[in-house]
Amino acid sequence: MKTFNYSDLTKADIARLVQRNVDPANEIRTLVEEVIEQVKQNGDSALIDFASKFDKVELTKLYLDRAELEQIASAVTEDQQEALQTAYANIYKFHKTQLKTEDKVETMPGVTCWRELRAIEKVGLYIPGGTAVLPSTFLMLGIPARIAGCSEIVVCSPPQKNGKVNAFIAYVALMLGIDKVYLVGGSQAVAAMAYGTETISRVDKIFGPGNQFVTKAKTIIQSTTTTAIDMPAGPSEVLVIADASAQPAYVAADLLAQAEHGIDSQSILVCTSQDIADKTLAEVEKQLSILPRAEIAKQALNNSYIIITKDLDEAMDFSNEYAPEHLILATENWEELTPKIINAGSVFLGNLTPESAGDYASGTNHTLPTSSYARAYSGVSVDSFVKKITFQYLTEEGIQNIGPAVGILAEMEGLHAHRNAVSVRMRPDNNKF
Amino acid sequence: MKTFNYSDLTKADIARLVQRNVDPANEIRTLVEEVIEQVKQNGDSALIDFASKFDKVELTKLYLDRAELEQIASAVTEDQQEALQTAYANIYKFHKTQLKTEDKVETMPGVTCWRELRAIEKVGLYIPGGTAVLPSTFLMLGIPARIAGCSEIVVCSPPQKNGKVNAFIAYVALMLGIDKVYLVGGSQAVAAMAYGTETISRVDKIFGPGNQFVTKAKTIIQSTTTTAIDMPAGPSEVLVIADASAQPAYVAADLLAQAEHGIDSQSILVCTSQDIADKTLAEVEKQLSILPRAEIAKQALNNSYIIITKDLDEAMDFSNEYAPEHLILATENWEELTPKIINAGSVFLGNLTPESAGDYASGTNHTLPTSSYARAYSGVSVDSFVKKITFQYLTEEGIQNIGPAVGILAEMEGLHAHRNAVSVRMRPDNNKF
Repeated sequence: MKTFNYSDLTKADIARLVQRNVDPANEIRTLVEEVIEQVKQNGDSALIDFASKFDKVELTKLYLDRAELEQIASAVTEDQQEALQTAYANIYKFHKTQLKTEDKVETMPGVTCWRELRAIEKVGLYIPGGTAVLPSTFLMLGIPARIAGCSEIVVCSPPQKNGKVNAFIAYVALMLGIDKVYLVGGSQAVAAMAYGTETISRVDKIFGPGNQFVTKAKTIIQSTTTTAIDMPAGPSEVLVIADASAQPAYVAADLLAQAEHGIDSQSILVCTSQDIADKTLAEVEKQLSILPRAEIAKQALNNSYIIITKDLDEAMDFSNEYAPEHLILATENWEELTPKIINAGSVFLGNLTPESAGDYASGTNHTLPTSSYARAYSGVSVDSFVKKITFQYLTEEGIQNIGPAVGILAEMEGLHAHRNAVSVRMRPDNNKF
Repeated sequence: MKTFNYSDLTKADIARLVQRNVDPANEIRTLVEEVIEQVKQNGDSALIDFASKFDKVELTKLYLDRAELEQIASAVTEDQQEALQTAYANIYKFHKTQLKTEDKVETMPGVTCWRELRAIEKVGLYIPGGTAVLPSTFLMLGIPARIAGCSEIVVCSPPQKNGKVNAFIAYVALMLGIDKVYLVGGSQAVAAMAYGTETISRVDKIFGPGNQFVTKAKTIIQSTTTTAIDMPAGPSEVLVIADASAQPAYVAADLLAQAEHGIDSQSILVCTSQDIADKTLAEVEKQLSILPRAEIAKQALNNSYIIITKDLDEAMDFSNEYAPEHLILATENWEELTPKIINAGSVFLGNLTPESAGDYASGTNHTLPTSSYARAYSGVSVDSFVKKITFQYLTEEGIQNIGPAVGILAEMEGLHAHRNAVSVRMRPDNNKF
């Protein structure tokens, strides 16, 4: 990991350091567009062809039903079941509080406005499979969808070589009361959920992480159909702010946990002395040696760096510029720092709160904005699965109170029929049926 | 307006009727990409060239400052000022209630999670100018941005032939405490706010309606930069549900108010008898004759239609399929209907609540999802100008409680460094600095 002194960096240096490649996969656009077109034209048969081509499996049926899921899920051990249930309970408990009713507001006498939540009817969840099996992602998407009350939850996950999904995915489906998992992966899964096929319903919004093909398909779908997506996605990243009250073994463990995700992951350390950096790097070396995914982690750390700042405020300035997906405040003084956070996806406070707690089971969602999208986007929550519809109701008094202003404003904009819609209601000589 | 009996319609007919063209402007993509590239490369000088080419005005300076805005705004009459102030007060009052703090949740002993709001730092507002001057849109975007606490609000509006903006735009800028309005319109304004130029700051999210060039630029920006957009936008639309308790003059006025927006607007009437349809059409003819924008409204009505249903429930089924931007419940029985609304942008209840009340001054936002996007998107609100950042804090008890589950889950996903980040914190023999 390269080390920089914050005070040596120009504005342009900082801009370069915080820059991530937001569209690394533009060269695959044509390929993905072709897959989408095939699915749009040929539906299920295209999906079966792509399973043969990409997943090397011959499917006779595009989904697993409840009985099949139960059989597959029976391989999950009791310990694993308990761990999944702990995660489920915490995620449910936190997300349940996000579903709120709102009060009515009388903006002027006789004019009442409010918002009501409505679940998005049909949602699609993409759960990566193959080498990276992520039951935790299934929980993170399925639980808020259930709490929101989505009436149809379509789940796509790529088939394994045996034409099934992993046991953990099957178990989580059953926990969520989902009776069908579609054996479809990659950009073809996104296309199927956006356009619908003979067996797969078209959905209103697609959620979930995936490889560059999935991500590219999601951005294409977002700009060419009315199906929405949760957010753009890039490689995962963590930024750790550490001062002398941090513990190097913990900081090192957090940097490595991020680095093992993939060779394009970033683990950034922003600390207040060279001493902290040195001790952390020594710990990284020590812990790296026993990691099964050491090679991946090493490469990711080569893309990562350390910034030395004069104090925590300067560290937070850099963090806000970087806008990290995960921000760990490895300091006993975190309470002073949180009000200064402007841009971050999810924040881990103090020395005893590792990112992996939030990745799995603290209760917060791990589907978060990467690549500096945290400047404008929030992570997934129940909010992501609902719409807020505005309502307004005017009484006789209300229309008389608001009518004159509306008439003048409509005239200012040259919209006389807008004015008329108010004035016709203000006259006593209304015609009735 | 063509009339259809709902009972005669097949599923395919309904799908065709509710279909809107979501990407009518794909042929202009190359043109818009060229404009974006020019702005990216040449900054301010490109903007001055485009003002000359598209707005037919030679600018020596790209913005109006406070003194200039004050001078321009002095043309606003007292009546107009009062109307703008009424709108401002109602919109402010309703939107202010959307800014909420959330409670902390202890998901298990020693594990606490919560969300905190943070304003998006830099936002860009696009306010259409030229023939369609929309001070109301400026209020609808500027007020929630101010309530959210955005630290920088960049406003772009196309220059008029005299190199200025309209007096109403200037007045609203001053109401909002905005001291600068950039004289930039079209796709070049979107490009300037997404990439930044010498005078215009790069922003994190761009809001506002516009013509097809602006809309295309926004969708390109959304998929190629980290700058977000409020939502995709298409032509405006209303769906009115009417039964025998409606008043034909009001319904006709509402259909016409929508139709006068543009020739691509849609005004859909869904009513429970042919009689209501006939009486409404007679009223439409009568009111149309005195409208200045009658020609536009006539063409829009040609693209519109009437559906006759057997009851209000059937009418609501069709409305939910259509997912209208604006939904008017022209019936005294609206309270029975509102729980059945699934997809809509903003809803106007009963006979005395015209859409134009919400367009201008009831308090709700008029920046809403069109083109059936209401299935998955909400209208603009204070939510659109903030991020919700998740936080978590674990105590010693917390890490001991959650640690075992996290360890098992990490192992299930093959991520040993994730497990280690927890287990290193659970051991008593921690090394310290």
